[in-house]
Amino acid sequence: MDYSKLSAEELKELLQQEQKELKKITKRGLTVDMTRGRPAKDQLEIAMPMLQRAGELDYALKAGDARNYGQPQGIRPAMELFAEIFDVKPEEVIVADGSSLNIMYNVIQFAMQFGVLDNEPWNNQGKIKFICPAPGYDRHFSICEKFGIEMITVPMTKTGPDMDVIEPLVASDASIKGIWCVPKYSNPTGVTFSDKTVERIATMKVAAKDFRVFWDNAYAVHALYDTDDKLKNIFDVARKAGTIDRIYSFASTSKVTFGGSGISAIAASETNIKSLLKHMFFMTIGPNKVVQVMHVDFLKDLDNIKKIMKQHAAILRPKFELFEKKFSEAFEGEEYVQWSKPRGGYFISVDVKGCAKRIVEIAASVDVKFTAAGSTFPYKLDDADSNIRIAPSCPNLEEMDYAIDVLINAIKIAEIELQLKRKQ
Amino acid sequence: MDYSKLSAEELKELLQQEQKELKKITKRGLTVDMTRGRPAKDQLEIAMPMLQRAGELDYALKAGDARNYGQPQGIRPAMELFAEIFDVKPEEVIVADGSSLNIMYNVIQFAMQFGVLDNEPWNNQGKIKFICPAPGYDRHFSICEKFGIEMITVPMTKTGPDMDVIEPLVASDASIKGIWCVPKYSNPTGVTFSDKTVERIATMKVAAKDFRVFWDNAYAVHALYDTDDKLKNIFDVARKAGTIDRIYSFASTSKVTFGGSGISAIAASETNIKSLLKHMFFMTIGPNKVVQVMHVDFLKDLDNIKKIMKQHAAILRPKFELFEKKFSEAFEGEEYVQWSKPRGGYFISVDVKGCAKRIVEIAASVDVKFTAAGSTFPYKLDDADSNIRIAPSCPNLEEMDYAIDVLINAIKIAEIELQLKRKQ
Repeated sequence: MDYSKLSAEELKELLQQEQKELKKITKRGLTVDMTRGRPAKDQLEIAMPMLQRAGELDYALKAGDARNYGQPQGIRPAMELFAEIFDVKPEEVIVADGSSLNIMYNVIQFAMQFGVLDNEPWNNQGKIKFICPAPGYDRHFSICEKFGIEMITVPMTKTGPDMDVIEPLVASDASIKGIWCVPKYSNPTGVTFSDKTVERIATMKVAAKDFRVFWDNAYAVHALYDTDDKLKNIFDVARKAGTIDRIYSFASTSKVTFGGSGISAIAASETNIKSLLKHMFFMTIGPNKVVQVMHVDFLKDLDNIKKIMKQHAAILRPKFELFEKKFSEAFEGEEYVQWSKPRGGYFISVDVKGCAKRIVEIAASVDVKFTAAGSTFPYKLDDADSNIRIAPSCPNLEEMDYAIDVLINAIKIAEIELQLKRKQ
Repeated sequence: MDYSKLSAEELKELLQQEQKELKKITKRGLTVDMTRGRPAKDQLEIAMPMLQRAGELDYALKAGDARNYGQPQGIRPAMELFAEIFDVKPEEVIVADGSSLNIMYNVIQFAMQFGVLDNEPWNNQGKIKFICPAPGYDRHFSICEKFGIEMITVPMTKTGPDMDVIEPLVASDASIKGIWCVPKYSNPTGVTFSDKTVERIATMKVAAKDFRVFWDNAYAVHALYDTDDKLKNIFDVARKAGTIDRIYSFASTSKVTFGGSGISAIAASETNIKSLLKHMFFMTIGPNKVVQVMHVDFLKDLDNIKKIMKQHAAILRPKFELFEKKFSEAFEGEEYVQWSKPRGGYFISVDVKGCAKRIVEIAASVDVKFTAAGSTFPYKLDDADSNIRIAPSCPNLEEMDYAIDVLINAIKIAEIELQLKRKQ
């Protein structure tokens, strides 16, 4: 319904109706937390065979016993496994503990304190800036905020970040040192960057010698359907263009095995990897290699990972499809609400026009929690107050059904309130 | 034998004899690496039941599923376990992944970049200095070197670091921000700090408001004998003295379960813990909690850990005792060589007079590798060229026997060479 064409009186009546409707919905009295992209309990069960086999595995590797010190780059078979995922050479991979965010933080911390390769530490270069396509992943933006890195918000399009905006910026400003990207099934928009976007990011002219692309390939294998989105290999493009040192790519098994208790990795040029290992020598005695042996035994190779991910998809897909079904029924053809139809990843992105905060507030008032509005933007500043990130993974289907009903209702109430305000 | 009283001719003859002896010893043709304190293979087997049970454990904790995101301070039962080891409250503990060195690095990195509590970042305070009792742990000194922290070398005594030297320094110089300590079965001297030393460290006047004691209790439960050294609880002393915020303590299970693949922890005041958790929010999604559940199930409590450590001691003790027996036979009453007789920990410390480098070199020439001479000192500068760190854990008894024969012979050769040089 186009609320903007209604009179104040009509709007007031509709508002009352919708508020009544909300009361009706909430009689089911559920509590739903959709703030974070957490795997559901039945997803966690998928990886239990990994733990069941842990006691029988052979931990004696060529490079030494995985149960003992050493092998700071990770165990070779884990390097090979991630090399297959990243489509790079094993020598271009470091395998670390469960948190890929931790690798990202460390890479930035090394750059701040010690500099990228032979360049001056970022700490000594005055104001440092990062390009932050938005909506994006809040924890990326948090790292920038923590280190006082100025964030330049750039819009996301259907093919990735708006390159027409980015290219002139990075070409002219040497204080811009990086860009955050979630290139596949992007958090939260679900967008997979087009080949053209990948090429432009890999080959664009950058003013800073120590510019780095933070390519967080968090959803590399996280398809919801048999036909997976195809992301162009940025390393291939960069290798050809002679810009290979520009790329840091990240991945983890947090949504393959266990959330935060998997293994994670960085891929980068051998020059970068050698430099990072030199820094890491001072930082750690090395990763948990017992966990790496367990993961390699369970995950085996990319083909087998894809099989495992089909089990995840079977659990996740109905939740995404329920959302799509209910939102289509409620809002098909409406101008005031748009939503993504992702074919992978962990999020649905909802865009409204100036009432995202109010919608999240209404839902929270009946115990349905969504990620705080604004969180998907640098400094939590969503100027248009438009974006809401939906994380369908954790609730079960009943809770999901309930949460969507609440959300649909909250969107209508907030939109009516907005139109009413305009009339007054 | 007192070589200094012999003539040049006699020394030359003895040198030839000892060189012949070395050839005789090395006919056994073994290769031994004693550079690091690595657990031996049979020690690693002790923790295999932990992995064998991993598939049967209940990972659903009160605070949430350990297989999912969350619980950045570690799982509560692991906090409680380390609280018992540190003898502090669980709220005063953060449990992290396998590398306690990683926690130490992070704590220093936070201090450098963001400051300790509300104080100015160390990066902005000009030259920063640390007190470094030596001989000590090389990886502590490496962290300082990495961050450009100036190291002030202070001698170790039989009761811990020389407090008479330290107290006036830290009382007068606000640029001294920390002290490294391995307070129990110290690396490499084996010394356990006396009660008096613990008290003086906890209560000494410090000029810097952001001064911190880095209390690396790496060998808290690592006794070789039934009668364990008793280390006074520095938190008790500091709590009474109102200096509790001064103490960071560290421990890990690297030498209880698996080297680098265990769990580690920091203990500190609740004020410090809260501040560290705030920093850590930006750094990591959290530790591997599946591994923590496995550890808590296997280790249970301090009493049970002590039982596990008796199994380790049964493997380690014969190696330490073989060293003691052979060194007593070779050098009892000699002035030119001293060695520690530790009752716990992982190292024996050998002191010679000005020929440590040459001894390590001779041993290396016949494939017996010791930690590089000088490594136990800041900047690797052992001015007296005196200290050699012996790590008896990794080789088996036969290799150990061989390595000690080589070492004894190398010490004699180097000492004879030294005396010869003095005659010439």
